[in-house]
Amino acid sequence: MAVKSWFSIPKESGFSLANIPFGIISTTSNKSLRAAVAIGDHCLDLEAFAAGRGFSECQIDDSVFSQPTLNAFAALGRPTHRTVRTYIQNVFKTDTQHPKLLKDNTDLQQKCIFRQDEVTMHMPMQIGDYTDFYAGKNHAFNVGCLFRGPANALQPNYTHLPVGYHGRASSVVISGTPVVRPNGQVLENPAAEVKKPVFKPCQRLDIELELGAFISKPNPMGQPVPIAEAEDSIFGLVILNDWSARDIQAWEYVPLGPFLAKNFCSTISPWVVLIDALEPFRSKGIENDNELLPYLQEKKAENVYDIRLQVELTPKDGKPTVVSNSNGKHLLFSFPQMLAHHTVGGCNMNVGDLLGSGTISGPEQGTEGSMLEISKGGKETIKLEGGVERKFLQDGDTIVLRGVCGNEESGLIGFGECRGTISPAPTV
Amino acid sequence: MAVKSWFSIPKESGFSLANIPFGIISTTSNKSLRAAVAIGDHCLDLEAFAAGRGFSECQIDDSVFSQPTLNAFAALGRPTHRTVRTYIQNVFKTDTQHPKLLKDNTDLQQKCIFRQDEVTMHMPMQIGDYTDFYAGKNHAFNVGCLFRGPANALQPNYTHLPVGYHGRASSVVISGTPVVRPNGQVLENPAAEVKKPVFKPCQRLDIELELGAFISKPNPMGQPVPIAEAEDSIFGLVILNDWSARDIQAWEYVPLGPFLAKNFCSTISPWVVLIDALEPFRSKGIENDNELLPYLQEKKAENVYDIRLQVELTPKDGKPTVVSNSNGKHLLFSFPQMLAHHTVGGCNMNVGDLLGSGTISGPEQGTEGSMLEISKGGKETIKLEGGVERKFLQDGDTIVLRGVCGNEESGLIGFGECRGTISPAPTV
Repeated sequence: MAVKSWFSIPKESGFSLANIPFGIISTTSNKSLRAAVAIGDHCLDLEAFAAGRGFSECQIDDSVFSQPTLNAFAALGRPTHRTVRTYIQNVFKTDTQHPKLLKDNTDLQQKCIFRQDEVTMHMPMQIGDYTDFYAGKNHAFNVGCLFRGPANALQPNYTHLPVGYHGRASSVVISGTPVVRPNGQVLENPAAEVKKPVFKPCQRLDIELELGAFISKPNPMGQPVPIAEAEDSIFGLVILNDWSARDIQAWEYVPLGPFLAKNFCSTISPWVVLIDALEPFRSKGIENDNELLPYLQEKKAENVYDIRLQVELTPKDGKPTVVSNSNGKHLLFSFPQMLAHHTVGGCNMNVGDLLGSGTISGPEQGTEGSMLEISKGGKETIKLEGGVERKFLQDGDTIVLRGVCGNEESGLIGFGECRGTISPAPTV
Repeated sequence: MAVKSWFSIPKESGFSLANIPFGIISTTSNKSLRAAVAIGDHCLDLEAFAAGRGFSECQIDDSVFSQPTLNAFAALGRPTHRTVRTYIQNVFKTDTQHPKLLKDNTDLQQKCIFRQDEVTMHMPMQIGDYTDFYAGKNHAFNVGCLFRGPANALQPNYTHLPVGYHGRASSVVISGTPVVRPNGQVLENPAAEVKKPVFKPCQRLDIELELGAFISKPNPMGQPVPIAEAEDSIFGLVILNDWSARDIQAWEYVPLGPFLAKNFCSTISPWVVLIDALEPFRSKGIENDNELLPYLQEKKAENVYDIRLQVELTPKDGKPTVVSNSNGKHLLFSFPQMLAHHTVGGCNMNVGDLLGSGTISGPEQGTEGSMLEISKGGKETIKLEGGVERKFLQDGDTIVLRGVCGNEESGLIGFGECRGTISPAPTV
């Protein structure tokens, strides 16, 4: 049963009391960036709540909530995140132990509670480095089949380690930021003997449905994070759209990996769902036939999360169509495994670093995490509401990714929207 | 002829008046990080110089020199860098127009001039993102031959665009920082039918001799930097050692590129040599048979620099051996071309972003930029002074990379040292 609140929370909201995700807001009356949590259709301005002595019954240095990012709060560590989340849940529940703080204090309510449609969301974290993994085995297999055929779809290393590559941190943006179609070098006739690229706007603009994990605990260079401690280094999760230019990628990516095909934009959802909020939704991931090396072995088999993921496409002036339903459990490696691997050679992480899961596709049709897979490499059309067809994205198209755990009875745990609309390529 | 100085500058110093490179220092008497320029065996503390009204005859907001990085100074733009460099050259020349500022002011000299062996050098820039290119064509060919044979050594895209990949910014460190040998997954028997990696310390630890370029001008997402403006976005150059774990790399790098093989450490030299100081050493690079797409076409054929590069290896308690002499001109693409390409799809750059050139090898024996090439993939031994032999690096080995332009007559333009000593791999 959902914990009852004195505050009105729609039961279909992903921001039930069981969630309490953190983000960064500004308002028209106060342009300064500060921390907030989402509750139902509203959010609680944590700076204003702190200023009204809202944290007087909680052991927390509440100045962290006046920062323009969540990095300082994240750096306080998982026990503190847990304390604050539990405290806020307590403040909002019907039988709160602290009724005078907010429940019976309409003056403070007016100062620190805003409707979500009144606030502007900002990047929740300052990202140092962004690393994108490739742990969605179904996606890796599907894409590998398209490029190299089923026999060589997965490389021999694939099941032994979480394959990953360094991404571009500067172009990670918040949900709602326009996505400018990239120009780039494309090989129009890959079969031709003389390979001569042309320069043009990307014709195969795609999405990648991913989860992102923010790091809350730094490790010094040369000192790996042991697998047993890795989960406690993760602050929380967001939905990530790793926009991809498939035609640019095909020409550029051998031998050093994707570059311009990925670095024009990556979009994240604005609310960071704490790792503790996801604990009830632990799930087994994709089974790995290999015995992993010890540094990647986790105690719990349930190392990923049952998060229902959805891809919705809306053409300009058109109707929305859900083109895919996937799930966060379709991963071969967990975020703790990714972090343990990332650092095992000595690489240092900083608070705010972002790990992408890789594209999360399910095993059957209708669960693919990219249009490349849905359209079978652009060979088949994707039929949308209103008779519209797509293979890849057109200018004006809007993509919304969503993720949610649980049910209305015990309270939904949602991620909000990860949204982007395609703008035309610039004239160069 | 070198410009004469009232200050004693050894003629063999790479920090002649023709140079004036910028760095970040601290001293035992003042632990705070601040900007300095190198002059001969000394450096000029720019914060102390500013405090002593040293910049009173120069149009500059000298508060930028009190920052712990050069980012704020870099962001002022190339005309300002030029103004400040010319001004400092003027202050130090024998017939300076401003003798009272420093030449005849021994009190200020004592406050702002330090011997270089008295100061601690720090990271010159806060790096947002680090991108490593692969523009050293001889290196790419040599390594391609080892991995794939001469016929397929270079991919079809290689001569059409500067191939690059995103590197790890967090593990870029200043010269002198110990380099911890990484552990990682290695495939001991690549020919075996069942590929089963083992976990062990890297056995093929290598260097990569590169130049690094720091960005001084941001571009917004979706707005490429035109090739004609790209050079003015480059603050200056450093020497870069992109340490590489070849055995880890071989197992992990297909299909998404190098990851743990590179992100354990990358070392840069401490002094940023301004792009203007390198102007007299413009040189033609490696000729490209392809006609490049317009966005990569530069007006000047002399688009790289004649910088003499050197690799020195010293075993623990042993003697130094110069194992390679290369040159900065052995590049197929220039830094402005790399920047134009990097941004052409809309990727945004920030002040302090670092571009690596890729390993710079010359065309003949003795000019290779990596031990992988010198030892022909580990098949031949490299003979060092004192009868010592190497194929790859052993614990306790010290590598020093150096770079210098010009001659003593007109004044040497040196980069200082890019140094690192190998520490043993940690026990995991």
